[in-house]
Amino acid sequence: MYLIIAYDVNVARVNKVKKFLRKYLHWVQNSVFEGEATQATLEEIKIGLKEIIDEGEDMVVIYKFRSVEAFKKEIIGVEKGYCEEII
Amino acid sequence: MYLIIAYDVNVARVNKVKKFLRKYLHWVQNSVFEGEATQATLEEIKIGLKEIIDEGEDMVVIYKFRSVEAFKKEIIGVEKGYCEEII
Repeated sequence: MYLIIAYDVNVARVNKVKKFLRKYLHWVQNSVFEGEATQATLEEIKIGLKEIIDEGEDMVVIYKFRSVEAFKKEIIGVEKGYCEEII
Repeated sequence: MYLIIAYDVNVARVNKVKKFLRKYLHWVQNSVFEGEATQATLEEIKIGLKEIIDEGEDMVVIYKFRSVEAFKKEIIGVEKGYCEEII
């Protein structure tokens, strides 16, 4: 499947979440990641996120698609994720 | 169509973007909105965003789907958008 994950977490945990998601997905922009994942990987991601975040304060939204073909993507402004990868 | 819009903009413009997108879509969490839109509305949103953001510094990513059925959504932690609506 294909995932888009966006998080809104306390600044104290934001880098931990970013570092963790980087192991599985591509960074798109500040607090958004996307990429292919198996069901098993998704479960791993969810377990890891629950360990890092405070579920009473933070929020992570996971959008799940059958494939990357399920959507079209358009960017306005700079492609931050792309810049990061080529630096 | 259905849209998910995530933005990563300079703090000087973040409230402007939020206020603008609120006119068209539902707030999901810090810097993420989603909702139904026609092609005409999407064009209006894009024009408006280009007026607000600095295209050399900011980034807005627009994910476009045929319908809300194109994805499944899962939330870990608090449902911020929902809280905001009921307050």
